[in-house]
Amino acid sequence: MPDEINAFVPGPPVHIAGRPDGPLSGLTFAAKDLFDVAGHPTGGGNPDWANDNPVPTRHSWAVERLLDAGASLIGKTITDEVSLGIVGENAFYGTPVNVRAPGRVPGGSSSGSAAAVAAGVCDTALGTDTGGSVRVPASFCGLYGIRPTHGRIDVRGMLPQAPSSDTTGWFARDAQTFARVSTVMLGEAIATTLPERLIVAVDAFAFADPEAAEALQPMLEKLKTLIGEVGEDIMAPGGIVQWARAQRTIQPAEAWLTFRDWIERCNPRLAYNVARNIYTGSQISESERHWAELVRREARGRMRHLLPPGTILCLPTTPFPAPKTGEPLSAASVQRDRILCLAAHGGLTGVPQVSIPGATVDGLPIGMSIVGGYGTDATLVAVAKAVSATR
Amino acid sequence: MPDEINAFVPGPPVHIAGRPDGPLSGLTFAAKDLFDVAGHPTGGGNPDWANDNPVPTRHSWAVERLLDAGASLIGKTITDEVSLGIVGENAFYGTPVNVRAPGRVPGGSSSGSAAAVAAGVCDTALGTDTGGSVRVPASFCGLYGIRPTHGRIDVRGMLPQAPSSDTTGWFARDAQTFARVSTVMLGEAIATTLPERLIVAVDAFAFADPEAAEALQPMLEKLKTLIGEVGEDIMAPGGIVQWARAQRTIQPAEAWLTFRDWIERCNPRLAYNVARNIYTGSQISESERHWAELVRREARGRMRHLLPPGTILCLPTTPFPAPKTGEPLSAASVQRDRILCLAAHGGLTGVPQVSIPGATVDGLPIGMSIVGGYGTDATLVAVAKAVSATR
Repeated sequence: MPDEINAFVPGPPVHIAGRPDGPLSGLTFAAKDLFDVAGHPTGGGNPDWANDNPVPTRHSWAVERLLDAGASLIGKTITDEVSLGIVGENAFYGTPVNVRAPGRVPGGSSSGSAAAVAAGVCDTALGTDTGGSVRVPASFCGLYGIRPTHGRIDVRGMLPQAPSSDTTGWFARDAQTFARVSTVMLGEAIATTLPERLIVAVDAFAFADPEAAEALQPMLEKLKTLIGEVGEDIMAPGGIVQWARAQRTIQPAEAWLTFRDWIERCNPRLAYNVARNIYTGSQISESERHWAELVRREARGRMRHLLPPGTILCLPTTPFPAPKTGEPLSAASVQRDRILCLAAHGGLTGVPQVSIPGATVDGLPIGMSIVGGYGTDATLVAVAKAVSATR
Repeated sequence: MPDEINAFVPGPPVHIAGRPDGPLSGLTFAAKDLFDVAGHPTGGGNPDWANDNPVPTRHSWAVERLLDAGASLIGKTITDEVSLGIVGENAFYGTPVNVRAPGRVPGGSSSGSAAAVAAGVCDTALGTDTGGSVRVPASFCGLYGIRPTHGRIDVRGMLPQAPSSDTTGWFARDAQTFARVSTVMLGEAIATTLPERLIVAVDAFAFADPEAAEALQPMLEKLKTLIGEVGEDIMAPGGIVQWARAQRTIQPAEAWLTFRDWIERCNPRLAYNVARNIYTGSQISESERHWAELVRREARGRMRHLLPPGTILCLPTTPFPAPKTGEPLSAASVQRDRILCLAAHGGLTGVPQVSIPGATVDGLPIGMSIVGGYGTDATLVAVAKAVSATR
């Protein structure tokens, strides 16, 4: 398979046929290189991770699930190093090409999975989302993507980052495929009844670039028409920045615990900014973590209060479309922090979120996100399907 | 040239004949890959440094000097990444073999230069010493090595790290060759008159492992016999740890200024501990730097007071012989900090220092160092030559 979009990890091809006559038969999928595929190294986006860890002998749960349902695996995709990154630039393997936004990043850390689906190389692809790693590339590449309710999807055989935030997600180009795959992954039929109330997260819309918020208005109107009852509210009364800061405390501190033994044993090669993030995580104090956990508790309560059964929330997935590739480090850090502000509620609270192709700004895609209460993943997929049918 | 000791950087061979009939004709030398050699990339021990910087069109001053004197260049040697390292393990190019201490590190950052000279692959080799990068590998590989008076040797064409501490040094296996090369590099004949007074740095000897200090006693006796008048004193009345801490403030803060633009532009791949060191340097406050500069001022005054003309100081070059290769990161950090304590006075004060093969501990070499007042480099070389003749 020629890899003109640089979506796949180097090495021997990975091709495993799905079970015949399954619900996903005929579909092809790729798996982010954090998911174990028996007999193939799990690279984790870093050459030393593969060198320093054994080749898995079993498939990860998610890969097994899709193969059992009939989808065929066609490759393992590039990820930001050990999933620590949000723009999708990997210093070792390069940047997967975002065919929807030439010269722009694909978003990360599920960069290759999003790039492959966007380019039509496969029908769906597995990603992971700890702090935005499915939602952000879905937004930047104009795809459907889901971050499921935390804890709902089995993460066995998936390289962890920050377990209290880690989730397994997936991408598709169209709502029908997205719904088919979601049915299998969630183990639940996609509802035909829709939510009754839509809340517009005014703080999140105000945080986005004005042009992005403006461009999303037609999609917002469609959602309003579809759902009927509409309200406006602040998602994070204490501030999305406070939530982001709490997530940026909990997640790197946990990531340090995840990678500490590897770092200590192997002193791996890493891009400077990845090493900096890991080291910063190692320096977070117990007291800071404690305050962040209290913010998390409050945020979870806020989401339960805001999102009773039948209510969904909508917000821009990202504050702007995909930035240019090769930005200097400080500029990229500023962009990253803004992106993480709009995505932090996911890892912090664990609610499910679906990003749908929302609009284009100067031809560049940007996602609209819908968020529901805990366990309402299938409802969000149903909304994505329904709103796509109204186009 | 087969490189069984992994001393040389990968790539096309670098062979440049020296000028015929020079004072060093017949000698071969290698240059640490921080020194420019016209037409060859300066790798700096990191694959992204070479990628991100132009191929030099002129030789560095030090390479030119040796070629002009008749020595022939036979290769460029592995260094710790951008000279940030003291044990000589490079995550990209591997660890040069220390033939004098199998299974042990060669010391760094001038690791390949020391390894090549120790193995007899060349007669002498250029290194750099900012915080110990010539003295430490000289100690670990059983070589003669010099850190000249700061500012004495032209550093044109040498990749800088922390300019207020950077020096160009060199190694040799025997005192005769060391003296020949030193004459050329220093541009000064090696004196025949020796110093009149030797001070034993009791704080430094006490800081070394007891077995190392004990093993160095016979060499200390030789020095005492050679020089005649002997005293004991404390090198750093405020503590060698205070000096080391000041150096570990000034040096990483300056290194950050040196590499900041490269990091910002290229986000290079680095071993975790190298990235951590650079990032730590970026976080040092103005106020900390200010206090460290005051300690430096006091330390320079101390050296002027302690080392009037005709007086030299001696101390163990390192607190122990070469540690094992592949130590876990935290153990390596502890070793590094102790090594830097005994070496910090060099970068902090700028006095010249020569390390001579001092003893072996369980068969592993360890260096004895002699330190003199500013500009007394040739006198120290003369002492090295004289003491070697007394064996």
